[in-house]
Amino acid sequence: MRQFVVVGHDAPTTPDFSLEDLPGAGRLDVLCRCVNSAFFLSHALREDVRVHLVLADAYVVRFEGAELRRLNPDERSTAALIRGALEAREGAIGAMEANPSPGVYIGKGDFESTVRSVAEESTLIELHEGGQPVVELEPPSDPAFVLSDHHDFTDAEADCLAEVTDERVSLGSQALHADHAITVAHNYLDTDGFNVY
Amino acid sequence: MRQFVVVGHDAPTTPDFSLEDLPGAGRLDVLCRCVNSAFFLSHALREDVRVHLVLADAYVVRFEGAELRRLNPDERSTAALIRGALEAREGAIGAMEANPSPGVYIGKGDFESTVRSVAEESTLIELHEGGQPVVELEPPSDPAFVLSDHHDFTDAEADCLAEVTDERVSLGSQALHADHAITVAHNYLDTDGFNVY
Repeated sequence: MRQFVVVGHDAPTTPDFSLEDLPGAGRLDVLCRCVNSAFFLSHALREDVRVHLVLADAYVVRFEGAELRRLNPDERSTAALIRGALEAREGAIGAMEANPSPGVYIGKGDFESTVRSVAEESTLIELHEGGQPVVELEPPSDPAFVLSDHHDFTDAEADCLAEVTDERVSLGSQALHADHAITVAHNYLDTDGFNVY
Repeated sequence: MRQFVVVGHDAPTTPDFSLEDLPGAGRLDVLCRCVNSAFFLSHALREDVRVHLVLADAYVVRFEGAELRRLNPDERSTAALIRGALEAREGAIGAMEANPSPGVYIGKGDFESTVRSVAEESTLIELHEGGQPVVELEPPSDPAFVLSDHHDFTDAEADCLAEVTDERVSLGSQALHADHAITVAHNYLDTDGFNVY
């Protein structure tokens, strides 16, 4: 399984935002594009993918590729799914998540708990311009990539990552948006480290 | 310079569509994501990029990276730029384009005239699942990639491409959305054919 943890530092934690202004809703557009890049193939969804959106260190919305039924590629409809999850947030009690639509879960959670939990079942990879070139990395069987939105990781997040990540990897000479980085990471894994084209 | 020609078979040719339903506006969301992938780096625009959106074989909206001033990453604001271009379409007379906002041009045009014109100044590359693996291709200095929206190329478009393209290239084992293909193509060029990471 491939996993992606995306941190939305300013993301909404209540459903009272407008679908007409996603950049104004704590740059929710960034997170929506990440969900698109993580799941969509030309005529299919990637089923063996899990995405964790960390919303302002308060809630985590989890998307399960094998269960998703109502995901469309455009930002607005993905934002509507996230809004639906936030409407159901009161149903998340303790460690129990709510499941407002097929393949979409919401639970209380923060960056550190999410990353530590994902690290237990994967090879955790921090994407960073200064990291090791991805071509030098043998593609792991269960990779998890941790990405930030339009902000850098906070000092506390960076400290946590330094402790739990297995690899710090660069995807190329240019610093990319998080959603573009997900697309490149998929291509690297699809082609077994660019060796099988 | 890197160029991308993206064909929107059902794209609007008048400005009377709603920004609240871009998929319903002839899948304009697809074209907006392609513009995003073509231009955005983490904290900059790619200046040496030109994008041609072919709208239903009637108009071509051209984006010039070196001149763009009001491009934002979200789909809706890009759609608003395209709508602004369509509002100015009457100003495009004969071969003369209108220039409704910095770096955004609109002119009458169709697939064949656009592709033939771009082919004169570039190495024209058709992205196709059945093409040559991209790793076998020496990155050209002035590549132009031709992509289709959610539809396949029509027979007439495919015939035209067979005549004018220099290369037919595959980006990997999975068929990708057009915007994801643009991201992978950039990564391939940024890293000199995946050799310079």
